[in-house]
Amino acid sequence: MALITTETKGVFVIAATPFEDDGALDRESIDRMVDFYYDKGADGLTILGMMGEAPKLTQAEAIEVTKRTIQRSGDKPVVVGVSAPGLAAIGELTKAVMDLGAAGVMVAPPSSLRTDDQIITYYRNVVDTVGTEVPVVLQDFPLSTGVQISSKTLGTIFENHASIVMLKHEDWPGLQKIADLRDAEAKGRRRTSILCGNAGVFLPEEMQRGADGAMTGFAYPEMMVDVVRLSNEGQPDVARDVFDAYLPLVRYEQQPGLGLAVRKYVLAKRGAIKSAAQRRPGAALNAAAIADVETLIERQTRKLELLN
Amino acid sequence: MALITTETKGVFVIAATPFEDDGALDRESIDRMVDFYYDKGADGLTILGMMGEAPKLTQAEAIEVTKRTIQRSGDKPVVVGVSAPGLAAIGELTKAVMDLGAAGVMVAPPSSLRTDDQIITYYRNVVDTVGTEVPVVLQDFPLSTGVQISSKTLGTIFENHASIVMLKHEDWPGLQKIADLRDAEAKGRRRTSILCGNAGVFLPEEMQRGADGAMTGFAYPEMMVDVVRLSNEGQPDVARDVFDAYLPLVRYEQQPGLGLAVRKYVLAKRGAIKSAAQRRPGAALNAAAIADVETLIERQTRKLELLN
Amino acid sequence: MALITTETKGVFVIAATPFEDDGALDRESIDRMVDFYYDKGADGLTILGMMGEAPKLTQAEAIEVTKRTIQRSGDKPVVVGVSAPGLAAIGELTKAVMDLGAAGVMVAPPSSLRTDDQIITYYRNVVDTVGTEVPVVLQDFPLSTGVQISSKTLGTIFENHASIVMLKHEDWPGLQKIADLRDAEAKGRRRTSILCGNAGVFLPEEMQRGADGAMTGFAYPEMMVDVVRLSNEGQPDVARDVFDAYLPLVRYEQQPGLGLAVRKYVLAKRGAIKSAAQRRPGAALNAAAIADVETLIERQTRKLELLN
Amino acid sequence: MALITTETKGVFVIAATPFEDDGALDRESIDRMVDFYYDKGADGLTILGMMGEAPKLTQAEAIEVTKRTIQRSGDKPVVVGVSAPGLAAIGELTKAVMDLGAAGVMVAPPSSLRTDDQIITYYRNVVDTVGTEVPVVLQDFPLSTGVQISSKTLGTIFENHASIVMLKHEDWPGLQKIADLRDAEAKGRRRTSILCGNAGVFLPEEMQRGADGAMTGFAYPEMMVDVVRLSNEGQPDVARDVFDAYLPLVRYEQQPGLGLAVRKYVLAKRGAIKSAAQRRPGAALNAAAIADVETLIERQTRKLELLN
Repeated sequence: MALITTETKGVFVIAATPFEDDGALDRESIDRMVDFYYDKGADGLTILGMMGEAPKLTQAEAIEVTKRTIQRSGDKPVVVGVSAPGLAAIGELTKAVMDLGAAGVMVAPPSSLRTDDQIITYYRNVVDTVGTEVPVVLQDFPLSTGVQISSKTLGTIFENHASIVMLKHEDWPGLQKIADLRDAEAKGRRRTSILCGNAGVFLPEEMQRGADGAMTGFAYPEMMVDVVRLSNEGQPDVARDVFDAYLPLVRYEQQPGLGLAVRKYVLAKRGAIKSAAQRRPGAALNAAAIADVETLIERQTRKLELLN
Repeated sequence: MALITTETKGVFVIAATPFEDDGALDRESIDRMVDFYYDKGADGLTILGMMGEAPKLTQAEAIEVTKRTIQRSGDKPVVVGVSAPGLAAIGELTKAVMDLGAAGVMVAPPSSLRTDDQIITYYRNVVDTVGTEVPVVLQDFPLSTGVQISSKTLGTIFENHASIVMLKHEDWPGLQKIADLRDAEAKGRRRTSILCGNAGVFLPEEMQRGADGAMTGFAYPEMMVDVVRLSNEGQPDVARDVFDAYLPLVRYEQQPGLGLAVRKYVLAKRGAIKSAAQRRPGAALNAAAIADVETLIERQTRKLELLN
Repeated sequence: MALITTETKGVFVIAATPFEDDGALDRESIDRMVDFYYDKGADGLTILGMMGEAPKLTQAEAIEVTKRTIQRSGDKPVVVGVSAPGLAAIGELTKAVMDLGAAGVMVAPPSSLRTDDQIITYYRNVVDTVGTEVPVVLQDFPLSTGVQISSKTLGTIFENHASIVMLKHEDWPGLQKIADLRDAEAKGRRRTSILCGNAGVFLPEEMQRGADGAMTGFAYPEMMVDVVRLSNEGQPDVARDVFDAYLPLVRYEQQPGLGLAVRKYVLAKRGAIKSAAQRRPGAALNAAAIADVETLIERQTRKLELLN
Repeated sequence: MALITTETKGVFVIAATPFEDDGALDRESIDRMVDFYYDKGADGLTILGMMGEAPKLTQAEAIEVTKRTIQRSGDKPVVVGVSAPGLAAIGELTKAVMDLGAAGVMVAPPSSLRTDDQIITYYRNVVDTVGTEVPVVLQDFPLSTGVQISSKTLGTIFENHASIVMLKHEDWPGLQKIADLRDAEAKGRRRTSILCGNAGVFLPEEMQRGADGAMTGFAYPEMMVDVVRLSNEGQPDVARDVFDAYLPLVRYEQQPGLGLAVRKYVLAKRGAIKSAAQRRPGAALNAAAIADVETLIERQTRKLELLN
């Protein structure tokens, strides 16, 4: 399988982890879901992200999910989240998933980091641990990690480590950060791939600032695919038309914690996975939330029909 | 001026603080802005909120802003934010603004609070400090304060203190909290007014759960006014049509920090204030952000025309 | 090997993890260090604590350290730290170490917990995950976790789960919490073992409040052993004499982060381990810090001689 | 009154705020306490520190306390804490206290700051606000503020602003930071005064690293005075003898929150203030804590007698 590079573009969907209603890993749904994502136009997948249900998997299950996802993905790239409290665990998991054919690994900073130098040193240790031949995605997600990385510090890290090839961008606000990075590249810094997260809630503007695509888990990946394509084709206004049709649901799915239940509900409804169940602990949607989601989907469908 | 009560409903706009380009307080724009908010249908105003520019005012200026806003508001209620690190400051400011005719004061928990009992005790101290005759709004904004208040703890506080008449609701996710509070009232707990913040980004759903309205600062207050009115008139789908037209800009204005620059830019553009300037320190919008906002407004205008 | 119970008393030393100068696991020093701790009077050991170097071990190494420590400990109890971001990892590691003969597992709350109910629910999930037959130590260490657990919430957790048999107490300030728990037991709540951490810096007072002993890693375990014994023998003043002689070094070793380097330096100097090296990343003591430590040890030795 | 400078040395005691049993400001005790501190050898005082009871004072009371303390101090320098959420409040309070004769103001960073540049910018704004003629003390207290300032960032700030003349040093661990700053000065950076806080718990080592003295509130200021003097006289071992005698109580008084009650109890016992009362909200010592303190004082007295 190909590795991700500084030139990687497009949409990497953060894949859900399918479970049976009784909490067992649903292997068949992994295949179905992987197919679903690619059918909708995904360029690659990201698994074991830190906001999903990866922490509920045993190590053996995490490896099994990785193996199955990579196999089903054929020659499409799969990035694997390996964030962990200790470098040893990061190193072990990285070796295991790269041996299985992963396209790269994603690492968020531990929440104890504060000063610029602490952050810079952390990524030096990560690269030393996983080896310079492994492509690394730096996940910049302050709302969740509490760690703020300035454009300048990101630049230092990118200059230090050629193997950190991609930024998973989900600072908030974060548009200026994309502009800062692209400006620095225009002045000579080597290129970095920038895929944007935050449920896609700023994707049209992010593409205008120079992002290469999206890496997030919205249950209608075709939204990201269309917005990225239309933006690249010089049709930002049409991209916004599509985006606006999906935005009410994007916003609803972006709710921390609850959003995962929304996402699985929609994926199950769309046939991508068999059950919306989360492994314990994890809340199901109650009747009021289901009513919200059904209303949002119905309205979204209507708007999309008007667009076509 | 009337005081807020547990029956207060409608839209309280969080007012901006207008400055001249050189940073001086722009007194004339206070009047113009207050008129603007009421012209657009606001039922009341909230000033000196903790996310805006209140901390850049001297105490004398804060009092002046309060006095002028209350006078210009006539018989409309004005809530004043009095959150401060110390109870003495809260007590002093409360006395001053209630003497000027404020309709109530708003207090967020200090970020050091953690356990349920610490939060419960804090609001006991607040009520002891300001006196039971002053109506208090409890601002529940975990994203900013870091303090999480469960539905149960909120209930205990409301049961302890009849003078805490309103919840400024901006937990995220927070829809279930509204449902929890209304359920408890259905079972006998005294009523509390619930006005929702978070830039209005969940207003249609919040109204369905039983909210009484909005308290937030979006630069198109008519959106909140219409969504609240239509929701109350039993037309949630029309409410959503209006909401969806504004949502792309709501989302853009909700960006932490940057959002205030967006808001002032739009208010100035709409003629509500003379200058979009923030008193130092405070960032102005750059060209790319202005282009975003202009595009969003243009598209919003087009969509609203289609609705009428 | 016996399991820990609600009656467990004495001194459990938090064991260091010995490495060679090149970062390899130093297996021989594990044996030597285990012997050293018991020679100095330890009643048991605790390994894989979250403040030490456990996160630098691969999973295989963690299991090996556990196995070797338990074997060398003979019939002395060994508690194993299993805190992890996910319940699945906690369950897996718990099963592995209990199969190897651990006396119980220790779990600190993840730093995302805030409300009382979130904390109570978390420990319900932990007990559900590891099973009620596994003795659990609840580690209450707000300075590190950011999670504050009130005496009342601790009480609820202890009442809910008979298998949580011990509190590792390291709140700061925390003396009243011991008194609260003992008061509740006097009024009928079932007993909980309380072993105190925080480097032992309040051990004399903690014993007076009703603690059962210490669980911390000071490089002179005989201090804890003597203070606990003398306190139990009704000689608090002699206990304080001993404590005061060690306090200057206790204080120096309590420095967050740096303290581990101090501890390993002293353990190596005392012959308990071969090398003071930490596996990367980890700071060594510089010359000034070594001079401090040498001075403190010299003075400590002099004072202890005066006591005898 | 003289201003503090980069050459300021010695012991600045963080003064308590004396109240009557009923919570009224105890003006007479201010005088008595000020005399007490100077009698014990203080070189200056610091008032309105953020860990004490300053937030319980009305603005008028804060000014009155400042005025009275400065008057009673004669030609001794009084530093005033002016940390506040907003720059306007910092500017206002600074102007007021400098007009009253303060020797300088102390400012801690607000807890929202994260990146190096945010911290550097904050102090630029502070200096712009108070004016370059006002001597500023930078309070570096991560345990309380959550803001970590590296030696490098401190250096940048000192280089940017000649009017930031002093560091109140209370990082933990923090000895290396003193060494870093003195090293940079040896290589040409302009001198900064460094007075150490953290209740004095590392004072002997801090003096060895090049600190200029202490700025903290221990109820036996003569400890700081003697340790600083003996360290400066080249008698570090005698300094440690004195320090060790006080250390058990220093440690007990260092407990967050509770420590203030200990301090006021001891100050009242020593006759420095009339009542140990804290203004509400504030906990009094219970019987067990009082017994601890009395035991610690008795033992301390005995040890000090042995030294003389």
